[in-house]
Amino acid sequence: MSLLARLFGNKPRTAAIAKERLQLIIAHERGGSSTSTPDFMPALQQELLAVISKYVSVNQEDIKVTLEKQGNLEVLEVNIVMPEAGAKR
Amino acid sequence: MSLLARLFGNKPRTAAIAKERLQLIIAHERGGSSTSTPDFMPALQQELLAVISKYVSVNQEDIKVTLEKQGNLEVLEVNIVMPEAGAKR
Repeated sequence: MSLLARLFGNKPRTAAIAKERLQLIIAHERGGSSTSTPDFMPALQQELLAVISKYVSVNQEDIKVTLEKQGNLEVLEVNIVMPEAGAKR
Repeated sequence: MSLLARLFGNKPRTAAIAKERLQLIIAHERGGSSTSTPDFMPALQQELLAVISKYVSVNQEDIKVTLEKQGNLEVLEVNIVMPEAGAKR
């Protein structure tokens, strides 16, 4: 459960203000060798968002995407707040 | 950078033992209302893995998947260790 409390922050919330949220984190750590994979993160990001939008109806403006790099580590974070009746099926 | 150090642990590693790794975390927090989306995580997981396998060549045994639930929060974690020459393109 170590990661659970860190996701979405750790503040208690009441049911009255609860929104449905989806968070996607992709972390890519490159190896030390020159045979490492090329940078596929931008393309991967597009495809993953396309998959997610098949399951939940989301407005483009409710999707927040951030990409961080630090040395060999690249982290893509996608935060989505869903509309009240977000179910597609 | 708050999340970066937590991903993949925080231990220094030498280039000699560096492996290429990909970590995918999907967190779904349901809203308080009864109109929340149904549980799409298992199907979503399958599709996301299919997308990832288009970009990196991975052996099934190198994929570790864990699913945790805590109240309204559901967290799917996928850890992939790539082979040395993991690039597909």
